[in-house]
Amino acid sequence: MNWPDRRLLDLFAIDHPIIQAPMAGVAPPAMAIAVSEAGGLGSLGSATATPDSLRADLQVLRQGTGRAYNVNFFVHEDPETDAERESRWRACLSSYYREFGLAPPAPSGPTIRPFNAALCDVVLELRPKVVSFHFGLPDAALTQRLKDVGIVLVGCATTVKEARWLEAHGADAVVAQGAEAGGHRGMFLADQFACQTGTMALVPQVADAVKIPVIAAGGIGDGRGIVAAMALGAAGVQMGTAFLLTPEARTAPLHRAALKEADDDSTALTNLFTGRPARAIVNRYVREVGPISSDAPPFPLAMGAAHPLRVAAEAKGSADFTPLWSGQAASLTRELPAGELVATLVAETEAVLARVQ
Amino acid sequence: MNWPDRRLLDLFAIDHPIIQAPMAGVAPPAMAIAVSEAGGLGSLGSATATPDSLRADLQVLRQGTGRAYNVNFFVHEDPETDAERESRWRACLSSYYREFGLAPPAPSGPTIRPFNAALCDVVLELRPKVVSFHFGLPDAALTQRLKDVGIVLVGCATTVKEARWLEAHGADAVVAQGAEAGGHRGMFLADQFACQTGTMALVPQVADAVKIPVIAAGGIGDGRGIVAAMALGAAGVQMGTAFLLTPEARTAPLHRAALKEADDDSTALTNLFTGRPARAIVNRYVREVGPISSDAPPFPLAMGAAHPLRVAAEAKGSADFTPLWSGQAASLTRELPAGELVATLVAETEAVLARVQ
Repeated sequence: MNWPDRRLLDLFAIDHPIIQAPMAGVAPPAMAIAVSEAGGLGSLGSATATPDSLRADLQVLRQGTGRAYNVNFFVHEDPETDAERESRWRACLSSYYREFGLAPPAPSGPTIRPFNAALCDVVLELRPKVVSFHFGLPDAALTQRLKDVGIVLVGCATTVKEARWLEAHGADAVVAQGAEAGGHRGMFLADQFACQTGTMALVPQVADAVKIPVIAAGGIGDGRGIVAAMALGAAGVQMGTAFLLTPEARTAPLHRAALKEADDDSTALTNLFTGRPARAIVNRYVREVGPISSDAPPFPLAMGAAHPLRVAAEAKGSADFTPLWSGQAASLTRELPAGELVATLVAETEAVLARVQ
Repeated sequence: MNWPDRRLLDLFAIDHPIIQAPMAGVAPPAMAIAVSEAGGLGSLGSATATPDSLRADLQVLRQGTGRAYNVNFFVHEDPETDAERESRWRACLSSYYREFGLAPPAPSGPTIRPFNAALCDVVLELRPKVVSFHFGLPDAALTQRLKDVGIVLVGCATTVKEARWLEAHGADAVVAQGAEAGGHRGMFLADQFACQTGTMALVPQVADAVKIPVIAAGGIGDGRGIVAAMALGAAGVQMGTAFLLTPEARTAPLHRAALKEADDDSTALTNLFTGRPARAIVNRYVREVGPISSDAPPFPLAMGAAHPLRVAAEAKGSADFTPLWSGQAASLTRELPAGELVATLVAETEAVLARVQ
């Protein structure tokens, strides 16, 4: 279709301003390839990558498509291990360890590491068109290395202040991530958890505040959301939950089943799984402990205490302790191949535009 | 302009599907008259009305405009006073009473009463075209009395489940109130506070679930939001914060000043002021006590303990204890007369439609 706002099409060299959200663990190269081949921007979630696994994935992408794609990294601060807090947190979860006959796991180091020089080397070697970051941007030297070779940089903002910061520090486009979005809130300057801005309010305020193109994210599930985002001033959209039921997604069967049953009010922002607020379907763990706990160890250390419970529960066929990442529009998610989903979204967008005209 | 969706225009007999939100205390008859005369639907917030004050207001409205207008009531359950909880809450606030040299106020009865037969009598006598409700709908007998004389009934939903309930119990249209909205969350069936759905996700899911027209609310500040709401499947919008800086609004000077300085992330949902979750600009009271407290007495009894602090602080020129109701798009609010604001919103809507076409 003839998109009214061409800024992202030109910046990313794509046909449709539909970005498949990078979802570490569930969005493999095959999904990114399918989306990019369909004219959108496919993304690889590389938050948990090592240089070797990243190289392997980028080689698959390069061989799989001649179109542009995006690789995403986290740029959080590596946390300090706090033995007392880890111990307090295990005490809080002790009844669950007993229930599953598990010994509380010993605290371990972080399993998710921030973007670093070694990963940057691989990126420069295999040159994806776009690199996006969650929780800020890399330090000035790493950012400059990426910019020097012409890689397009995208940051993620949950507030106007964060969007302005990203623009000032070299981002070429900014994702305005409304509170409806599934998975981790990209917040990195926001200090008040209670102040989570929804997509409808966030996008126009970010669009007013920055000159770089804005990508709307959060609660966008079909062509209606795409047109809404464009009306609000976004040049494109990023959609994650919408791709979780594609055959390409590595969404586990328990997660797929939960998504298919999710209602508009089935999710909450919770820090129990990783230590950072992230939106997931409320399951037994979130309901019983309460979605936000100040005792949870900092990101990503909270994963250590919860993981054995997840494994034990899943072995019994239960998603009671599984992070069931989801946005608030899960009920709009379709079970279509990723490329077909992009084509469907484009057709829906045309239909909605015709309806509101 | 030529609105693509005419359902609300026909139902309410208005020219533009822009509803000024009923805001008890700040939206007087003069604001409703100005909005209705401009072709939108003006609303009177009558949550605190007595039969006599309601009659007086409705007479002003009837004399002020021949167009349709809306009168809003609350339909919460009258609370039981719980002496122990009231005492615990005063203990929680004790340092503030000391700071202002106040004795903790004795618990008193509710200052906001639900819609009842006496108010219904006045409504039937003066026949506004539209009556809307917050926190559900009145009992079947009262609802039937209103329907029997052809009054159009509007309910407010924060979830798909609530929207379905309202449709099944006689609502002719439903407000889908996203979490961005200022003031009280209309929630009446939702049991999990953490699951607050944003407008972008809520509106299409509600539109898919009910046959009655949907009015989008929450975070809509200008023509961009109006077109976005239409794209999402709404037949119209309800805007509150957008009208708080009109000269017609009874917004106090301290509240106006706070709104003018508000950013996208300045607000939070808090139950400290009234006992029910409501979105307000975070001030000292909300920041220090924390926005949600399980000790706060039930709606509307929490008002009793906080009110003397508000009065004492305001006497010193401080909004530290004032409920500064606001949605998340306060930065988009314009200081225009209410009728001019409606005309501006219509012109903006036309411009946005032209841009996205």
